Amino acid sequence: MTTSLTTTPSTAQKLGAEALGTFWLVLGGCGTAIFAGDQVGYLGVALAFGLTVVTGAYAFGPVSGGHFNPAVTVGLAVARRFAWKDVPGYAAIQVVGASAAGGVLYLIARGADGFSAEGAFATNGYGDRSPGGYDLASVLIAETLLTAVFLFIILGASAKRAAVGFSGLTIGLGLTLIHLVSIPISNTSVNPARSLGVAWFAGGDVLAQQWAFVVAPLVGAAIAGAVHHLILGRD
Amino acid sequence: MTTSLTTTPSTAQKLGAEALGTFWLVLGGCGTAIFAGDQVGYLGVALAFGLTVVTGAYAFGPVSGGHFNPAVTVGLAVARRFAWKDVPGYAAIQVVGASAAGGVLYLIARGADGFSAEGAFATNGYGDRSPGGYDLASVLIAETLLTAVFLFIILGASAKRAAVGFSGLTIGLGLTLIHLVSIPISNTSVNPARSLGVAWFAGGDVLAQQWAFVVAPLVGAAIAGAVHHLILGRD
Amino acid sequence: MTTSLTTTPSTAQKLGAEALGTFWLVLGGCGTAIFAGDQVGYLGVALAFGLTVVTGAYAFGPVSGGHFNPAVTVGLAVARRFAWKDVPGYAAIQVVGASAAGGVLYLIARGADGFSAEGAFATNGYGDRSPGGYDLASVLIAETLLTAVFLFIILGASAKRAAVGFSGLTIGLGLTLIHLVSIPISNTSVNPARSLGVAWFAGGDVLAQQWAFVVAPLVGAAIAGAVHHLILGRD
Amino acid sequence: MTTSLTTTPSTAQKLGAEALGTFWLVLGGCGTAIFAGDQVGYLGVALAFGLTVVTGAYAFGPVSGGHFNPAVTVGLAVARRFAWKDVPGYAAIQVVGASAAGGVLYLIARGADGFSAEGAFATNGYGDRSPGGYDLASVLIAETLLTAVFLFIILGASAKRAAVGFSGLTIGLGLTLIHLVSIPISNTSVNPARSLGVAWFAGGDVLAQQWAFVVAPLVGAAIAGAVHHLILGRD
Repeated sequence: MTTSLTTTPSTAQKLGAEALGTFWLVLGGCGTAIFAGDQVGYLGVALAFGLTVVTGAYAFGPVSGGHFNPAVTVGLAVARRFAWKDVPGYAAIQVVGASAAGGVLYLIARGADGFSAEGAFATNGYGDRSPGGYDLASVLIAETLLTAVFLFIILGASAKRAAVGFSGLTIGLGLTLIHLVSIPISNTSVNPARSLGVAWFAGGDVLAQQWAFVVAPLVGAAIAGAVHHLILGRD
Repeated sequence: MTTSLTTTPSTAQKLGAEALGTFWLVLGGCGTAIFAGDQVGYLGVALAFGLTVVTGAYAFGPVSGGHFNPAVTVGLAVARRFAWKDVPGYAAIQVVGASAAGGVLYLIARGADGFSAEGAFATNGYGDRSPGGYDLASVLIAETLLTAVFLFIILGASAKRAAVGFSGLTIGLGLTLIHLVSIPISNTSVNPARSLGVAWFAGGDVLAQQWAFVVAPLVGAAIAGAVHHLILGRD
Repeated sequence: MTTSLTTTPSTAQKLGAEALGTFWLVLGGCGTAIFAGDQVGYLGVALAFGLTVVTGAYAFGPVSGGHFNPAVTVGLAVARRFAWKDVPGYAAIQVVGASAAGGVLYLIARGADGFSAEGAFATNGYGDRSPGGYDLASVLIAETLLTAVFLFIILGASAKRAAVGFSGLTIGLGLTLIHLVSIPISNTSVNPARSLGVAWFAGGDVLAQQWAFVVAPLVGAAIAGAVHHLILGRD
Repeated sequence: MTTSLTTTPSTAQKLGAEALGTFWLVLGGCGTAIFAGDQVGYLGVALAFGLTVVTGAYAFGPVSGGHFNPAVTVGLAVARRFAWKDVPGYAAIQVVGASAAGGVLYLIARGADGFSAEGAFATNGYGDRSPGGYDLASVLIAETLLTAVFLFIILGASAKRAAVGFSGLTIGLGLTLIHLVSIPISNTSVNPARSLGVAWFAGGDVLAQQWAFVVAPLVGAAIAGAVHHLILGRD
């Protein structure tokens, strides 16, 4: 985020901001899918995920950088925009924040008649568990490619050359767009923490597919980070 | 709001701006639900509530700070961003503005065939009166938690460290997101003035539930204000 | 609009910008209703009208101020933000631009099977011609009140105290919100030029109702302009 | 784009940014139509196309100017805002990027049961191939006129007089609005690269109509560029 800070935030403050931001991403994005998906449709869910990042970026971004996603953290490290030594802490707290949100969603959802988290609960999947029945190959291509483009958008919009202040809006709306394209394919991950955060609650068959939503986003982000650094350096 | 003022607004001007802004929040948000809810769905209603705050924040925010919500006013006071002595006046005028909008909505709605405000009229509720049949516990968790996150977004986006000018957009879109998640749960309050403003017109059964939409938002906002102040001070 | 100009635009350039902007408002807003209303619903139409103003404000606003609406022009004059001597020219060219767009829409719409402009064509109406069957009193209240709030938003968002650059976005999203509330009531005017621009093509019964959509917006805008000036002066 | 650059980008960097941005426009816009069109409707597709430009403008615009469209490139050249000698390279790489996205979409789409690209695949068309059955005359009027307005928006929003930083948002939301109006008419091109990028994969009948979506956007853009330059010079 291109903003000034009155004081440099501490590591604990940064990790807290990443935890809260990733908690919000899953609470707002997956929560909309779970509670209101039938009413607001894929368009509403896509908008919700994007707005978690828009709001999180402007509110918590000045403290932590506003990653909320291990793939983003890794991609930024590959592009030399983030220190490798801070990657494990960021990734771990992001998964913790996402999983806490998954737990809260489970707690609230139990309060409606006939609720079951088994095999749905806004989880990502391929084949039988893809909303549109897309096979593993299509899902891996889509997740890798879309995460790569997401990183190009993040790296470009938060570069020094970019318009000041607009990076949060750009990155969030980029996530909305990624969901518009790919909810039917994989229910859209591009974020291992988001995938894991709800998968714990949905049973073994769902968990067994989550490797794809850890690997593909990380690979896509790393490729984009490397290519961006190769072509434009640290700019 | 991070803007310059040519002159410091008077208390009367501030209270007028809060009255008008909260009037607009209920007229625009609840009005969309009442008149157009069947056509635009939860997505349209969520967008409408958010846009009342986006427009109100840029138009009236420079005068009064743009709270339009007693929970926001209390949360900002707990976080030491707003003077406690001004809280009662703000909260009272917000309820007045919201209730005036409720009255105008009632007046317009009567002009269509077969209108009845009994038990609906965009009011908040739990159990039988929750759109998705969520019980009181789920509603209290959702309202408290979402108001708390709303305050974190407000405190973060309007902090000195945040990008200049984007707070109104961030906060309004945050309210849209909160509605996307929780209209099915409670019809979404996170704002006691919005709840009371329409509840007067919907009969005793509705009014008897409104304590939940006064208590939960205030508790959530106060917790968020205290935690934010504890961690980041007045920044 | 809070922008710098390299040179002061001439009167002809200003009138050209108002003509083009009002043309775009009717082409984009009414065009979406006519061509795509069945597919995108009231939500899509509301978004379209708002985006005509967002885009017009940033593109043509720096030349002419971006009114695109005789009620806005009059309200700004009452609030002492616009010279009365320029009101007739602005209002006239706005109606010309809107009517030209109405003609182009008629020309394109003829190219689809089974087209008829009689009694629809995105026109405003009350009673039998109100989308939701609202009577004249409800329509007059809604149009007067919503135009008044629209002017408060415009006057606030374009004041010196407001955040720089955000006025176009605020005002356009305000128009989206006004449509979300009131398409069911009156098909939403708040703009005499928009109403007349399509009414010419829809037959005498429609034209006979247009007085309401000239009078109510002008009255609402004038009231708001006067109240704003009384309370806040020219700020 | 009104941004500062730390170093002047090379021609290769500019062409790479245009290739990536146009790839993203087709992947995001046509991809939403192909994969999610049945779920998100014309409104979702209109939003998707606009967000490809919003995100691309802020992320890649500072490198290349963010055209992503041969009609935009030509219109800017006619208006003397872009060098004629760079037009062929920009236009060629835009078609290459768009076509690469078409290929990726084909690759992903094959992974779902019962897929066929014949005669659909988010292509543009008139007559039998117009979504709403609009004839060639209506399609040529709409595409020419809407591209002309698009260029007026681009030229106005990126002028020195315009609000700093908002051009990407304005131009992208303008493209959303253009889609809201005209998806039923022509499936909306206003961009020869977008049309060709998917048409290769949809068979000869579709390809035979693409001349209209090369000619009309280029003519509309050139007219707007000439008129803008005549009236406002290079401002």
